[in-house]
Amino acid sequence: MDYRGFFDRSIERLKAERRYRVFADLERDAVRFPRALWRPDPKSDETSEVVIWCSNDYLTMGGHPDVIGAVCNAAQRHGAGAGGTRNISGTHHPIVDLEAELADLHHKDAALAFTSGWVSNLAAISTIAGLLPNCLILSDALNHNSMIEGVRRSGCERQIWRHNDMAHLEELLIAAGDRAKLVVFESLYSMDGDIAPVKDIVRLAKKYNAMTYVDEVHAVGMYGERGGGICEREGVMADIDVIEGTLAKGFGTLGGYIAADAAIIDAVRSYAPSFIFTTALPPTVAAGAAAAVRHLKKSGEERARHQRMAMLTKHALKAAGLPVMDNPSHIVPVMVGDAEQCKAASDLLLERHGIYIQPINYPTVAIGTERLRITPTPRHTEAHVAELVEALVDVWKALGLKFVEAQIVPLRPAAKVEDPRCTYPDMKRAAE
Amino acid sequence: MDYRGFFDRSIERLKAERRYRVFADLERDAVRFPRALWRPDPKSDETSEVVIWCSNDYLTMGGHPDVIGAVCNAAQRHGAGAGGTRNISGTHHPIVDLEAELADLHHKDAALAFTSGWVSNLAAISTIAGLLPNCLILSDALNHNSMIEGVRRSGCERQIWRHNDMAHLEELLIAAGDRAKLVVFESLYSMDGDIAPVKDIVRLAKKYNAMTYVDEVHAVGMYGERGGGICEREGVMADIDVIEGTLAKGFGTLGGYIAADAAIIDAVRSYAPSFIFTTALPPTVAAGAAAAVRHLKKSGEERARHQRMAMLTKHALKAAGLPVMDNPSHIVPVMVGDAEQCKAASDLLLERHGIYIQPINYPTVAIGTERLRITPTPRHTEAHVAELVEALVDVWKALGLKFVEAQIVPLRPAAKVEDPRCTYPDMKRAAE
Repeated sequence: MDYRGFFDRSIERLKAERRYRVFADLERDAVRFPRALWRPDPKSDETSEVVIWCSNDYLTMGGHPDVIGAVCNAAQRHGAGAGGTRNISGTHHPIVDLEAELADLHHKDAALAFTSGWVSNLAAISTIAGLLPNCLILSDALNHNSMIEGVRRSGCERQIWRHNDMAHLEELLIAAGDRAKLVVFESLYSMDGDIAPVKDIVRLAKKYNAMTYVDEVHAVGMYGERGGGICEREGVMADIDVIEGTLAKGFGTLGGYIAADAAIIDAVRSYAPSFIFTTALPPTVAAGAAAAVRHLKKSGEERARHQRMAMLTKHALKAAGLPVMDNPSHIVPVMVGDAEQCKAASDLLLERHGIYIQPINYPTVAIGTERLRITPTPRHTEAHVAELVEALVDVWKALGLKFVEAQIVPLRPAAKVEDPRCTYPDMKRAAE
Repeated sequence: MDYRGFFDRSIERLKAERRYRVFADLERDAVRFPRALWRPDPKSDETSEVVIWCSNDYLTMGGHPDVIGAVCNAAQRHGAGAGGTRNISGTHHPIVDLEAELADLHHKDAALAFTSGWVSNLAAISTIAGLLPNCLILSDALNHNSMIEGVRRSGCERQIWRHNDMAHLEELLIAAGDRAKLVVFESLYSMDGDIAPVKDIVRLAKKYNAMTYVDEVHAVGMYGERGGGICEREGVMADIDVIEGTLAKGFGTLGGYIAADAAIIDAVRSYAPSFIFTTALPPTVAAGAAAAVRHLKKSGEERARHQRMAMLTKHALKAAGLPVMDNPSHIVPVMVGDAEQCKAASDLLLERHGIYIQPINYPTVAIGTERLRITPTPRHTEAHVAELVEALVDVWKALGLKFVEAQIVPLRPAAKVEDPRCTYPDMKRAAE
């Protein structure tokens, strides 16, 4: 048995399928973001400056002075780690405080923090569905891997409803009868940027007495009056049984969480091995995350500028004839449709233009829908957008990628945004 | 369908079985550790001072100035989060640096960091065994939950060998024939504190051509010339295929890792969903952990004092007739043997003596073997040990728990420890 040979061949297989991933070694600069240093060669300390256009620290809260201050303060006061699982000396005051902030954010009894969003979905879905007798899980077809893992881990029967298809969901709910049912879905799907009809889902779940579990990881901090997510914005937060969110995107740090009734939180913290047997988030991370949540409850400025920059970017790319995939969110996907070309486009952007946008290939998206996924942040400026358009047009031409008909649509007036930097620049010119 | 009722009843069930866990809200003090503040009432900000005796920050590296300095420096320079998965802009230079430190620690080609030890076992065991055709996993009977989850997730056939039983392992290896085999075990079992016969396991694995996977989470930082763990101490580190460790115990921060051949690391990072779909550890955590690893490679002082304090504690407890479970490691388990009494002992220690030692009940240990698990650190002093013995004796008497025959054994000379605080105090007197 040649063990080494198997692993070598498994990697060769990935390379042959153009799925082998090279992680770019980036040094983010808290102050100068989106500017960062890139180390192209792992064997050298040589760096070159790049602009990051694919960060999931959507609001750049990871670089907010309050957040950084809270991290450093917690490190000085409490040290760098929690020192144990939640049960074995690892429940520290900053994490208790964070959970109270999160419960308050979603107007729920309680919240529970995990070391990642992936684990929070695995733990919560499998435990909740697993405790309910003969539970049927109804899962949206495009749910994230971590939700699918939670569904599988529960051992429950599952049925997949066509993505955002309310008629199909209702059909399955009716067919299920009065057994226990858990409807699991995302509020904002991160690769296409589309938003679920959360009001309709809640209405159907209530009508057929199903529990609801929503993943709001790409929405918390960014939508709703206080950053409670799409369900807050749509006024249905109170109707959802379990809200799952992340601390690693809109809140700029690390970890995942759920917010729900006290009894549900108590059940998950008591029964989920992935929670029980894991060291708690450090005080530094909990304090940083809590600072971000607190800030975004009061401040709508980051949200407004974030939306404004996303709209502006989409607009400018469309005006240049680049194939932006339409959606109503802050995600700006640009279709390539081929794994190799997608990787080539990403490489050329980085090497020729100092712009970092990771190719999104299978298994993250379906084969044939490979894309560049652009995530403007409040720290991107009009000048960054102009550079981006210019670079993408150059890459599209260099690789012979398809343009679409240029769309010049007047921007909606930015009624609520006073920032003068947000006025619409002449992007069309820059793109040519 | 009354959903709420099910969750309420699941919690009542736990309470009836005396398995309901109350997390103590502790505020660790980086400088004054093991002293900490405890908030007994979640509704009040009132605190009382306690001494922590059950931290898994075994060497108190979480409070080391180099580690705290590295955390703050990284926060100031790079911000509070990674900003994405490893593939989507989340590979930052501090995590690349950390992985190089870890690979060097274990003299392996490469290492891979995860957000927790739990996830590292889940991801690595399931991916490695899953890639090998028709792999049989041979798993020690007392392996940690995270390893069991990894074994299950792999979908491979598994056989359990009796804990540390080499004859049984050999029997299973012979019976397996020449198919692919992965032997998974821990180097140091954290609840009993016993150490695996790693040399013998390696010898058998080589003889029958099996791959080896060792979990060293309770040993890295603490054993071996440079803190490489039990396998380093026993001179078999190079013979082990995959070493899994944690950054959250001996290295005082958060996260887990594996170190192995480049091809194995490449396979795990490319195929494991729990790795692919998770935001990377923040630069702060990576930089703090790397500082701890670097420090412990050079400094043996913490290791020596840690062992000395563990030995001293065991000695003092035995001299007072407390039922210490014998073992050759730094773990000091004291047997209670009943869930309710174990909880009562822990409560009384906390409320009457200001000493925090979490009860260890089922499912962490088997029913009937409930215990107090004491973890002396280099920051515990002789005075702390004297107080501990006095408090435990009082609690044992108050609850009518069983004493054993007092064992007064001369301490081994502390040849390599120069710290004058480590001389043996008159513990016997304090205990009476």
